[in-house]
Amino acid sequence: MKNYEKYSVGYFMPPVNEMKWVRKDHIETAPVWCSVDLRDGNQALIVPMSLDEKLEFFQFLVSLGFKEIEVGFPAASKTEYTFLRKLIENNLIPDDVTIQVLTQAREHIIQKTFESLKGVKKAIVHLYNSTSFAQRQQVFKKSQDEIVQIAASGAKLLNKYRETMPESEISFEYSPESFTGTEMEFALRICNEVIDIWKPTPSNKVIINLPATVSMSMPHVYASQIEYMNDNLHNRENIIISLHPHNDRGTAVADAELGLLAGGDRVEGTLFGNGERTGNVDIITVAMNMFAHGVDPGLDFSDMPSIVERYEKFTDLAVHPRQPYGGQLVFAAFSGSHQDAIAKGMAFHEENNMEKWTVPYLPIDPHDVGRKYDADVIRINSQSGKGGIAYILEQNYGYAIPQKMREEVGYLVKGISDNAHKELAAEEIYEIFKNEYINVFSPVDITDATFKKVSTYKSDDGMLVDISVTIDGNEFQVSAAGNGRLDAVSNALKQTPYAFDYTFVTYSEHALEADSNSRACAYVALTDKSGKLYWGIGIHDDIILASINALVSALNRQKKIRPLAD
Amino acid sequence: MKNYEKYSVGYFMPPVNEMKWVRKDHIETAPVWCSVDLRDGNQALIVPMSLDEKLEFFQFLVSLGFKEIEVGFPAASKTEYTFLRKLIENNLIPDDVTIQVLTQAREHIIQKTFESLKGVKKAIVHLYNSTSFAQRQQVFKKSQDEIVQIAASGAKLLNKYRETMPESEISFEYSPESFTGTEMEFALRICNEVIDIWKPTPSNKVIINLPATVSMSMPHVYASQIEYMNDNLHNRENIIISLHPHNDRGTAVADAELGLLAGGDRVEGTLFGNGERTGNVDIITVAMNMFAHGVDPGLDFSDMPSIVERYEKFTDLAVHPRQPYGGQLVFAAFSGSHQDAIAKGMAFHEENNMEKWTVPYLPIDPHDVGRKYDADVIRINSQSGKGGIAYILEQNYGYAIPQKMREEVGYLVKGISDNAHKELAAEEIYEIFKNEYINVFSPVDITDATFKKVSTYKSDDGMLVDISVTIDGNEFQVSAAGNGRLDAVSNALKQTPYAFDYTFVTYSEHALEADSNSRACAYVALTDKSGKLYWGIGIHDDIILASINALVSALNRQKKIRPLAD
Repeated sequence: MKNYEKYSVGYFMPPVNEMKWVRKDHIETAPVWCSVDLRDGNQALIVPMSLDEKLEFFQFLVSLGFKEIEVGFPAASKTEYTFLRKLIENNLIPDDVTIQVLTQAREHIIQKTFESLKGVKKAIVHLYNSTSFAQRQQVFKKSQDEIVQIAASGAKLLNKYRETMPESEISFEYSPESFTGTEMEFALRICNEVIDIWKPTPSNKVIINLPATVSMSMPHVYASQIEYMNDNLHNRENIIISLHPHNDRGTAVADAELGLLAGGDRVEGTLFGNGERTGNVDIITVAMNMFAHGVDPGLDFSDMPSIVERYEKFTDLAVHPRQPYGGQLVFAAFSGSHQDAIAKGMAFHEENNMEKWTVPYLPIDPHDVGRKYDADVIRINSQSGKGGIAYILEQNYGYAIPQKMREEVGYLVKGISDNAHKELAAEEIYEIFKNEYINVFSPVDITDATFKKVSTYKSDDGMLVDISVTIDGNEFQVSAAGNGRLDAVSNALKQTPYAFDYTFVTYSEHALEADSNSRACAYVALTDKSGKLYWGIGIHDDIILASINALVSALNRQKKIRPLAD
Repeated sequence: MKNYEKYSVGYFMPPVNEMKWVRKDHIETAPVWCSVDLRDGNQALIVPMSLDEKLEFFQFLVSLGFKEIEVGFPAASKTEYTFLRKLIENNLIPDDVTIQVLTQAREHIIQKTFESLKGVKKAIVHLYNSTSFAQRQQVFKKSQDEIVQIAASGAKLLNKYRETMPESEISFEYSPESFTGTEMEFALRICNEVIDIWKPTPSNKVIINLPATVSMSMPHVYASQIEYMNDNLHNRENIIISLHPHNDRGTAVADAELGLLAGGDRVEGTLFGNGERTGNVDIITVAMNMFAHGVDPGLDFSDMPSIVERYEKFTDLAVHPRQPYGGQLVFAAFSGSHQDAIAKGMAFHEENNMEKWTVPYLPIDPHDVGRKYDADVIRINSQSGKGGIAYILEQNYGYAIPQKMREEVGYLVKGISDNAHKELAAEEIYEIFKNEYINVFSPVDITDATFKKVSTYKSDDGMLVDISVTIDGNEFQVSAAGNGRLDAVSNALKQTPYAFDYTFVTYSEHALEADSNSRACAYVALTDKSGKLYWGIGIHDDIILASINALVSALNRQKKIRPLAD
């Protein structure tokens, strides 16, 4: 027998399977969110949280906007009991937040659970028992009737103990645990049995939670199971259907989403999908997926870097760099074509003042989760393109590099990344760029220049210049005329004994906006006899001197790359 | 404007939407798998792989069973060109493996791509251009017709260049890049245009790859898009529909799975979902999901720990502890009820020799991916139960702790975990257990015992014993009778001046199977006057001496916990 042959599908299809949900293509309103970070999540940590950490985490969840928070299994753990008492006695539960506690269907446990709730304003008591075929067969060795009996007697005890707490607003939740391994007719039967005992009303709704305790099927199968329950639960209008997917098959998000289309009203999950084994469903992803479709998720993840930091501190689990919405790399574009499309898309959005976000390769605006364009989006390694490198230099340092210069700058930077075998940060790219191109004053340096406008020259704009220039340590005073200041300087340089051999190709300039002094930035390109291009960049308060600096930089690069005086 | 209001659904529904796929509940045969780790995956690494790493990674992929491997974009990168030449020239591509190379639809790039393939036996040339609404509008600023023109001219060039390589078996793939942001009618039109140019035949099929370059929709929408293409592509019987999902919405696995139901024949993805931003679809999860449904995935992930180790070395990315099938914690059960159900389920499977794996809380047998029960499944922290702790002591050390003793051992171990605020390894649990219960020989120690059978006593089994015993440093010689050896020793101990005050409650024993000498293990419980229980365990080659050691251990625990001689 091959090892895969010992498996078969372990789930049960509903007897009726209409799949009406499939006609809806997206979620239109956010569900009720219930965080189970402090229970399902915490119990799966290698080191569960301490009391103080739990108190801090609770306040963290409240700050994100959670209105329902499962705080533990107070009858099963001393820490969870103490934690709950502390929340209640120190009045730490805001009025609009309902806490939820888990209990098994046994009287001494239920009794202790209600004891732990004394003085609470609002709470959900969450009763569960396992209903799956495998657990009935292997763990409990009980019939369906006996399992229903456990749930029913638990449900009655909840009614009984609630009566002892008239001052608190207590509502109920029931979970047929291991729902996805349960025959659907049996899951329906047991839930309806509990509903009939609890008799929900519009002002006292009951939560029926249908967990994929272990994910066993493809997500549309889970949705069809939810739809069957949605269509057949008693007193449906007073029932809140809750989903509680786990991620064993990597499809917890899909389970939650398709389950919501199929009738779910509520999602139990955790931040970044912490929880037993592969984890619970990640509420951040489900919520941000709605956000990205224009739906208000009702939770606030606008400062993701700080959420990640706090989560990692509390759980001692790292958020994976590719974790949707939260990971370090999820907005990163290393590839040249992606960088180029993002840069063009961003420019298009700005120019056209676009109302809707449709920038290619960026599913959402990184700013909406507190991320930065410069550090998080365009990142430079050996796979990157000229567009990305130009984008970084423009966004961070204000250099609008001429189109024709970009390829050269791209190869320069990528080559250094490839040789060093590492990613380059924006500052490193800038350093490379600056050292190579900007105000390169050796071996040629113009130390002084005096201009005089001459009307005797061909045109009114004729210009005479006297320059002092140092070349390879030798000083020269030379003069020349030109049809503008830059031209005059260029002609003067050619008067020196050094046979500068170049053709002036192009010149452009812009104010350096990123610079606090708004200095001028000039780009000059020369060619030598062979047609090889040499770019130089000049920076100066004075636009004229910026252009001269650019010319000198280009000349010096030419000299360095192919010495003339040899 | 609220920030979510700047989004709306950016995908396009197909004009016809039958959703026939939804009637199938699981995948029945594995698709063709194509690894894009060396291209899409590699380009998204902070530090892309070196040439040597790529060569090693290629062989790693081959060893896992991949038959199609995209090796790069040889015309765009010198490293990828060199890598490809090395593969071909050094004959490193097995006969049953086809490499795939990516190219844009531009003649000099296509030409260079074919150049890079010289001498290859089999290859797929993968042509792409971006077709999405947003990229046409913002990046290319071209009409639909112009975008079709790009694809068509590229397709013709591929035909032309293939003719120059009659010695190689070259097939074609076309991707309408950003398919999920493309109007479906347009995606269909451009694919059919390419198909009509390539004219696929049964012996020369064409791959049409439909990427969720950016995931934009819920997974059933992607499936409906795939179904529309499946129903309307020209020459469908000679087309291989390929899926290439990305994970921006955390649903790449669901996209691949539902897409396969909807008509996909092939999946492009990576190990553990490496790739741009949130990554490509994780092929391991999709494949193992099939495995868990009894379907041969055609890939070998039986040594997951070594796969994880190699992957992490190559990519410098960690596999998350909750990553399905591969993560460190994905089989871990910390909670008491889960541990108990697993232990019972495992026992049930063994006793009943069950053919199919249905152990609760373990979606697959950890052994099938090279994981261990002891280290990976039952793990002990402050949330754990007596069942898990008993399971560890039995599985690893052979102690079948009596049911009634389990709760006490559980509290002891959990308490230490809670106080130390850490998880306990099996050896630590054993140390705690051993130091507390086994062969505790202080302050009471029996240094010698001589038995004599007496027929004059009440029954034939009457037993006399002379013992030498040290108590708090004082030695005593005492004798007593009993109806068995243990009883006689117990009676003798009561003859000492120390007023041992206990009632003998229970005794059991078993051979210590984990022990190479098959020593005997005995459990004794005493109560004091208040009814408090004291357990002790004795180990010895001789079963009689094991039971005496157990009695002495229980006595010593009683003395330690509540000293008698005060």
